[in-house]
Amino acid sequence: MIGRLNHVAIAVPDLAAAAAVYRQTLGASVSEPAEQPEHGVVTVFVELPNTKIELLGALGEGSPIAAFLERNAAGGIHHLCYEVADIEAARAQLVSQGARVLGDGSPKIGAHGKRVLFLHPKDFCGTLVELEEA
Amino acid sequence: MIGRLNHVAIAVPDLAAAAAVYRQTLGASVSEPAEQPEHGVVTVFVELPNTKIELLGALGEGSPIAAFLERNAAGGIHHLCYEVADIEAARAQLVSQGARVLGDGSPKIGAHGKRVLFLHPKDFCGTLVELEEA
Repeated sequence: MIGRLNHVAIAVPDLAAAAAVYRQTLGASVSEPAEQPEHGVVTVFVELPNTKIELLGALGEGSPIAAFLERNAAGGIHHLCYEVADIEAARAQLVSQGARVLGDGSPKIGAHGKRVLFLHPKDFCGTLVELEEA
Repeated sequence: MIGRLNHVAIAVPDLAAAAAVYRQTLGASVSEPAEQPEHGVVTVFVELPNTKIELLGALGEGSPIAAFLERNAAGGIHHLCYEVADIEAARAQLVSQGARVLGDGSPKIGAHGKRVLFLHPKDFCGTLVELEEA
């Protein structure tokens, strides 16, 4: 069912510093920051030859990554995003296997303008998993 | 400097259960487990079209992932591995930028038989980073 690893998301306390680490220390190609007010984050993409690293900074008071950053002051890997061809079919298969879809269980529009679901970390090796319809 | 994302490593308390999650629930192509006694782990690879997920189970008493699994009972993402063309050149650039290489600072032979270095999580957004000479 799952296809490509679309991205690895890393939540960071200081987005400019994190972008500098990837641009200067690791020598990668790094995008400009983009505010995503409807998602409560600012994103910077690190473009690798085969996938992307999404650096996430908190935006606003109710940012969904605020609690994570309280627990992980230096930052840390927040989620993995896998691509699926049909998100409704993926959801049906997951639910039939007993996996828990977060929120109300229906796909939302994610930060890339595509339909996404998030899956419960306890069902996936302690890893928050995002599925994105490719 | 960094090239492809070679793999995402997820440390898990029950490797057979984790392999079943990726094979059955997520429908991915999953390898048989391979014991790596010199590294204190058992590995299972999830083959995605563009990269790999490395599921890591502890092997033996002094496994290097034992402490991580004590802190993360359900498992969790242990490290990211980026490919570099020349690991000595990468090391020199990193050290010149003030980044800390773990251990004695010299490349070791990693689980894929290639030369690797591990970098201090505090210098890389709270993420343990492995560099592997491609």
